Amino acid sequence: MHLLPILHEHSPSSAPSATRMCILALLQDTLGEQLDWLATEEPLEMRVQGPGQAMVRVAVTMRTPGHDHELVVGFLYTEGLIHARHEIVAIQTENSADDQAPCNVVTVHLTHSINPTAVQRNFYATSSCGICGKASLDQIAVHCTPVAPGPVLDRTVLEALPTTLRNAQRLFAQTGGLHACGLFEVTGQMVSLREDVGRHNAVDKVVGQMVLAGKVPLTNQVLLVSGRTSLEIMQKAAMAQVPIVCAVSAPSSLAVEVARRFRMTLVGFLRETQCNVYTHPERLRLDH
Amino acid sequence: MHLLPILHEHSPSSAPSATRMCILALLQDTLGEQLDWLATEEPLEMRVQGPGQAMVRVAVTMRTPGHDHELVVGFLYTEGLIHARHEIVAIQTENSADDQAPCNVVTVHLTHSINPTAVQRNFYATSSCGICGKASLDQIAVHCTPVAPGPVLDRTVLEALPTTLRNAQRLFAQTGGLHACGLFEVTGQMVSLREDVGRHNAVDKVVGQMVLAGKVPLTNQVLLVSGRTSLEIMQKAAMAQVPIVCAVSAPSSLAVEVARRFRMTLVGFLRETQCNVYTHPERLRLDH
Repeated sequence: MHLLPILHEHSPSSAPSATRMCILALLQDTLGEQLDWLATEEPLEMRVQGPGQAMVRVAVTMRTPGHDHELVVGFLYTEGLIHARHEIVAIQTENSADDQAPCNVVTVHLTHSINPTAVQRNFYATSSCGICGKASLDQIAVHCTPVAPGPVLDRTVLEALPTTLRNAQRLFAQTGGLHACGLFEVTGQMVSLREDVGRHNAVDKVVGQMVLAGKVPLTNQVLLVSGRTSLEIMQKAAMAQVPIVCAVSAPSSLAVEVARRFRMTLVGFLRETQCNVYTHPERLRLDH
Repeated sequence: MHLLPILHEHSPSSAPSATRMCILALLQDTLGEQLDWLATEEPLEMRVQGPGQAMVRVAVTMRTPGHDHELVVGFLYTEGLIHARHEIVAIQTENSADDQAPCNVVTVHLTHSINPTAVQRNFYATSSCGICGKASLDQIAVHCTPVAPGPVLDRTVLEALPTTLRNAQRLFAQTGGLHACGLFEVTGQMVSLREDVGRHNAVDKVVGQMVLAGKVPLTNQVLLVSGRTSLEIMQKAAMAQVPIVCAVSAPSSLAVEVARRFRMTLVGFLRETQCNVYTHPERLRLDH
């Protein structure tokens, strides 16, 4: 099967909020390609500039394009860097050097100066200007090679994974409010389960356990997350060379891009009798 | 009604993974106090130290205590700072100066040095040592006062909010994979709706829209998020002085602490005929 390239659909705010792509949908006994929409994930760099002050980089967030000015103003307000509208002189979306790339830098010009030290102490710093999803992928590629073909997973095993994970989630059963990450053999045997309020932390705990046991890279195993997949989750899986990543919920556009670039199999909306396959279905034996 | 203080229950890993507290549970016609478990949320500062090198602060993450060493090792591995177990000399949990406070600092001693500049470029910096949930709350208090008593919300309006939000989620309907944040009047009228792959971004977009419209603080309105509530979400709501915050899913322990400290009403697991009230029920008219 050939999966088509990702198509962008432009929302009224010029950047695409949703991304269309061809997926392989499995529902009971029906298996077929279909066009599907994914939430777009792209980085946004937020900058501020006071009168006579050099530009200050405040933060980078992975966001869905659309209402970018509101996002930056809301962030500055909820972090206590501005207190009212009249402190804003202008809001500027930087022009992209590459017309094809989305523009992911917003600068807010203020009536007052911002202390760069205060900003750097509270928020994470960013490496360079002109950020885009592709740059995020390039950064992962510095550390990471494409994942080897590896194992093939049976459909019956695949569809049983979420139930196995959920039944083992001790803290979720207790609190109703935790993400989980499970690591499985292709036989369906669970190797590790970790829970956390942060879904990235749950993945780090599983990978960390394997590092401490001297069992990385995870080139023959399957990772399942209880929520959605994003750039961050897929980056962590790629670093651990996991060939098959499954999620109970949806992937973002960048999650699929990471899977494609590092030749990982990405499954979403995994339920007992259905799932969507976004990349590299050759690692799945989908006929019963 | 008097809500009891939060009790900690210690998991085998010494830090509590779940926190027990008294909540007000509403299910159809039954309203009563009950003991409930919340996922614990606490900061963790990750440090590394090479031979003859000064300690380097790598990152702070909000996490659920438990398997902290795995978390730090997994983070270092998935960020490309270590590549195998033999690079780790020792892992040390710092002693807490205050015996009552959880210990939230882990140092990994390595066989090689880490370039501090590389770390600072990639991850957010942290302000001080000895971090704990209380310190996170203190940091919010620098910018933020307790929220005024404000409005009272009828139960029928409260229970209709999630349906109104979901019906208006254009991008969720399209993609199945987005968080949403809605702002409502106490009449139930929706003032704003924003969607994003990042739930904190959805909140920032709503607040930013109100800042740009000159309509902050939001002292008479209700915020609803489609997922869980964490420290970060509640911090943003507190900064905007929102009196009532509702969520379709669970709060973390620190979300409740923020609500308590800043006198906000926090509702979780909000469905058509049920919800849990964690703090300040006096802003809700719960009898039909």
